[in-house]
Amino acid sequence: MDVITLTTDFGTGSPYAAVLKGTILTINPDARIVDISHEIPAQDVRKGAVVLGDVAEQFPKGTIHVVVVDPGVGTDRAIVYVEIGKQRYVAPDNGLLSRLAERTAPSRIIRLENPGYWLEEVSSTFHGRDIMAPVAAHLSLGVRPEKLGPAVSELAGLDWPAARHSLKRIDGIVLETDSFGNLITNITAEMISDRPTDSRVCVVCNIYETWGIYHAYGEQPNGTLVALIGSTGRLELALVGGNAAKVLGVPVGAPVVLAWE
Amino acid sequence: MDVITLTTDFGTGSPYAAVLKGTILTINPDARIVDISHEIPAQDVRKGAVVLGDVAEQFPKGTIHVVVVDPGVGTDRAIVYVEIGKQRYVAPDNGLLSRLAERTAPSRIIRLENPGYWLEEVSSTFHGRDIMAPVAAHLSLGVRPEKLGPAVSELAGLDWPAARHSLKRIDGIVLETDSFGNLITNITAEMISDRPTDSRVCVVCNIYETWGIYHAYGEQPNGTLVALIGSTGRLELALVGGNAAKVLGVPVGAPVVLAWE
Amino acid sequence: MDVITLTTDFGTGSPYAAVLKGTILTINPDARIVDISHEIPAQDVRKGAVVLGDVAEQFPKGTIHVVVVDPGVGTDRAIVYVEIGKQRYVAPDNGLLSRLAERTAPSRIIRLENPGYWLEEVSSTFHGRDIMAPVAAHLSLGVRPEKLGPAVSELAGLDWPAARHSLKRIDGIVLETDSFGNLITNITAEMISDRPTDSRVCVVCNIYETWGIYHAYGEQPNGTLVALIGSTGRLELALVGGNAAKVLGVPVGAPVVLAWE
Repeated sequence: MDVITLTTDFGTGSPYAAVLKGTILTINPDARIVDISHEIPAQDVRKGAVVLGDVAEQFPKGTIHVVVVDPGVGTDRAIVYVEIGKQRYVAPDNGLLSRLAERTAPSRIIRLENPGYWLEEVSSTFHGRDIMAPVAAHLSLGVRPEKLGPAVSELAGLDWPAARHSLKRIDGIVLETDSFGNLITNITAEMISDRPTDSRVCVVCNIYETWGIYHAYGEQPNGTLVALIGSTGRLELALVGGNAAKVLGVPVGAPVVLAWE
Repeated sequence: MDVITLTTDFGTGSPYAAVLKGTILTINPDARIVDISHEIPAQDVRKGAVVLGDVAEQFPKGTIHVVVVDPGVGTDRAIVYVEIGKQRYVAPDNGLLSRLAERTAPSRIIRLENPGYWLEEVSSTFHGRDIMAPVAAHLSLGVRPEKLGPAVSELAGLDWPAARHSLKRIDGIVLETDSFGNLITNITAEMISDRPTDSRVCVVCNIYETWGIYHAYGEQPNGTLVALIGSTGRLELALVGGNAAKVLGVPVGAPVVLAWE
Repeated sequence: MDVITLTTDFGTGSPYAAVLKGTILTINPDARIVDISHEIPAQDVRKGAVVLGDVAEQFPKGTIHVVVVDPGVGTDRAIVYVEIGKQRYVAPDNGLLSRLAERTAPSRIIRLENPGYWLEEVSSTFHGRDIMAPVAAHLSLGVRPEKLGPAVSELAGLDWPAARHSLKRIDGIVLETDSFGNLITNITAEMISDRPTDSRVCVVCNIYETWGIYHAYGEQPNGTLVALIGSTGRLELALVGGNAAKVLGVPVGAPVVLAWE
């Protein structure tokens, strides 16, 4: 039985998330539901896309990820079923899957148009309950995706600026902050591996700077700003024993420059 | 295997919620437990009743809903097993089930009095762990409800004011706010369907007013206050792309008037 | 199939918690995962130990508790598999298990050293994902603990001050506050049972005092400070219908004196 995950902006403890679960279990009483997060900020499609990009591929082959960050609910935005790598997704076509799709081209995109797999009554304000959860439940029961609607060729995109590499310098941005306040950039381990390994490296973020790239938070004393390659495989800035985002006031989108001699 | 849901005021991440789960799994290792919410405000029986009313009936037939919002724990308030429609409930008899019971009369009410289905030691401060969770676990194993205690005829109630319909006007209140800040009223879609369909409708809430009833949030620009029939089947007021409850400062209980010509 | 629980300081809704679940399910698709809490304050090993001490033993025999509060990740602190009573634990050896181990001596401690049960690539910042979750998943599939690494004889400790009993007086501290703001002390029911049962008892905490020990919160009117034996079997101070920790400003560690005539 394939796992169904839920990622929404409903807020932890929101009855809306429980309604998704009840709807899925009513259709497939044996469904195995796992919460990824209900803490995507309201209507923040970009943050939803980042979280999905960090997490979805850690799940078993065939997992069905239901993603409901849907400011356009009830308008003419499409809802899609998408296969990317070994994972499957059901989401509004508003860019939520664009970060995943940028790394690996989707092998299949279907626009949900067959109401036979939806609830009987479809509201104009809660397609998570009325369309996405039921479709995921039916998929977990083995319904073949081609029954859900017509194949389409493209997903809606969002702009994901790549870090730029120039002579002895990489320019990136803070892409996200995690719950520890670590500032996670769009500069990948591969980009950094280009630099001469014995060089001294300076990392500058807004008005803050730090030297060297460490391996573990605990290598420096509490209160030190350190740069390291985090668990997502990207450069991050962390305040040892503290919350860099809060203490330094650095927001998502802030520029990060890495330079060496 | 029937699903057991949990709804409490313990707070997400509270060890108390984990204790309920451990207690249930110790009695029925195969129990399937789903969190509805642990974010009911502390001791807010009314909010608990509203959330249950919005969510419980979305679950499969036979689901056992454990509800622990229990300011009277250890006093002489009863704990009850209740069947309403296709759902089953285990809760203190303090009004938590009154919103559900107002819509559909309970088909069975049993006062829990048989300690054979409780933990051996019963504290006076945590009947969720000592009585309600064990009873739910035993029910999920097939224990017949009549074994739990004597049948009784009535549940404790709370006052649920209905919206009042008069000539070209409906008077209601804000019943709850959701995690998006939408103001959800006690005015139902049916009440509104009475008005002439071509009439212009004005909705007034505290000092704010808006005209017309829309179908989707996205039909108006960001920042607009719109009225629409939300996913609960009741009139709600929403700030497109924003948080109406926070921005407008409208609390639960605020009057809402809908009027037409 | 044994249950796997998760206790972390990642924050509810953190993608890191979802990554643990995805990692476990990839190795054991039938794993049954239960969240204890992701709300341990960041890097607060002591609070993690208190929560575990309150909750873990409520779970079924053989449950595997994965605990990730790990400020020393990537340094030379060990990661251990531990059996205490009927429960099993996978955690960094940093004191997280010391409160449990103080009550019941571990029957087995193994230092995780066999990378055959880890992810292929091990980062220096997320051993929860790379080592602890995979080891728990393999254990739930029946892997024998001796395969994980060498047995060791001792766990890292933390200092857990016991309440002191003197003539007609017990001196303790506030050990934790719960989500209702109740002040839970390290004074156990057993210690209090020593006093003459008909004596009048005074409980003093910081500048506040209250007389008598009650059985239920509801025995006194709202706003009253009451002392009672809480569901953990320890003395607690509660503000009836309110939040004692917030209203009185009493922090964890504050002295609590119980005295009688």
